[in-house]
Amino acid sequence: MYTLYWAPGAASLCVHWMLIELGVPHELKKLDLEAGDHRKPEYLKLNPNGLVPTLIVDGEPLHESAALLMLLAERHHEFGFAPPPGSPRRGLYMTWMFHLSNTLQASFREWFYPDRQVAGVDPEAVKSAARSRIEACFDRIEARIAAEGPYLLGDRVSAADFLATMLMRWSRNMPQPATEWRSIAEYVARMKLRPPFKVLYQREGLTEWS
Amino acid sequence: MYTLYWAPGAASLCVHWMLIELGVPHELKKLDLEAGDHRKPEYLKLNPNGLVPTLIVDGEPLHESAALLMLLAERHHEFGFAPPPGSPRRGLYMTWMFHLSNTLQASFREWFYPDRQVAGVDPEAVKSAARSRIEACFDRIEARIAAEGPYLLGDRVSAADFLATMLMRWSRNMPQPATEWRSIAEYVARMKLRPPFKVLYQREGLTEWS
Repeated sequence: MYTLYWAPGAASLCVHWMLIELGVPHELKKLDLEAGDHRKPEYLKLNPNGLVPTLIVDGEPLHESAALLMLLAERHHEFGFAPPPGSPRRGLYMTWMFHLSNTLQASFREWFYPDRQVAGVDPEAVKSAARSRIEACFDRIEARIAAEGPYLLGDRVSAADFLATMLMRWSRNMPQPATEWRSIAEYVARMKLRPPFKVLYQREGLTEWS
Repeated sequence: MYTLYWAPGAASLCVHWMLIELGVPHELKKLDLEAGDHRKPEYLKLNPNGLVPTLIVDGEPLHESAALLMLLAERHHEFGFAPPPGSPRRGLYMTWMFHLSNTLQASFREWFYPDRQVAGVDPEAVKSAARSRIEACFDRIEARIAAEGPYLLGDRVSAADFLATMLMRWSRNMPQPATEWRSIAEYVARMKLRPPFKVLYQREGLTEWS
């Protein structure tokens, strides 16, 4: 039994998505970020960083979207969402999970919250720098998928694809959304066709980018 | 056989350290960052992000320090540098690897290269924001080690400790280095006593923080 602390469209989305894909029992605890639920003492006890998601696994609160995806893929390895240890794509899997997490996901934080980064800085300058980094990352993902797709690691969906698709969704209102890249557009369309994606959208109450 | 592209004291240090700990055959290729070796076309073919480290594993170039540590720990699991899949600390291990990578390591990038982040911004403001985030992270690590140490995951050294120690080393010339935190100071002293750490220092030609 898992318990996911989540908010609609937030970094919890990819974890929520994978829970639906796996069909494992899970309880959902929705946070109201505008009301500051993630800054309340009872939540900070579970997640001292004050971020979503938190996933309770065997009674232990765990965080970091990419870590949670990796853990779920491993605990339910029969779904094949991670190349198994010792297999040829294992190293690439780990490289991409960390790269998406600490480059692409981190840059979105700056894009969405430019005024939280540095005191007294022009938020537009922060956004512009973040945009460059995000687009450079899309270039690299495009090259990867065009050459070795249809998924990030080749012919099988992996945890990296749930993370990547969530991050591409975050670009939907940017000047150049991820779907302006040709292979990424096909990739995203393919990921969105998965039936669990529809369940996810209904549950989170999302409509944009559907 | 592994090949590590590295530079003294850079993000390759933790990977180099673990290779020595494991005693596995490896070739070292030193990059001169001041000469821009990491921006040269032949290196960008191996690592399109232009960063160190790159580790060649079975002929494949892989990156991201934390990913490389995780992969090495798994490929040489007999050393016990990662809680095995299904074991109680597995989730915590993944959470910390990603947290150190995308929060602490990412903030150091801003601390060291404040003028690369956003055009026209006061570098001192960038450094000050980075410093706050780094110190907040040290607070959380201090709390963790004090309560559940002596290592990050409890009583056994793991890949997370090589990453954390490298990052603490990076704070040595900051106004408040990691070793100002009491439990962290003991932790660092313990990690530095490991014989492979001395070999690492000799090989990288390091003297500070020895």
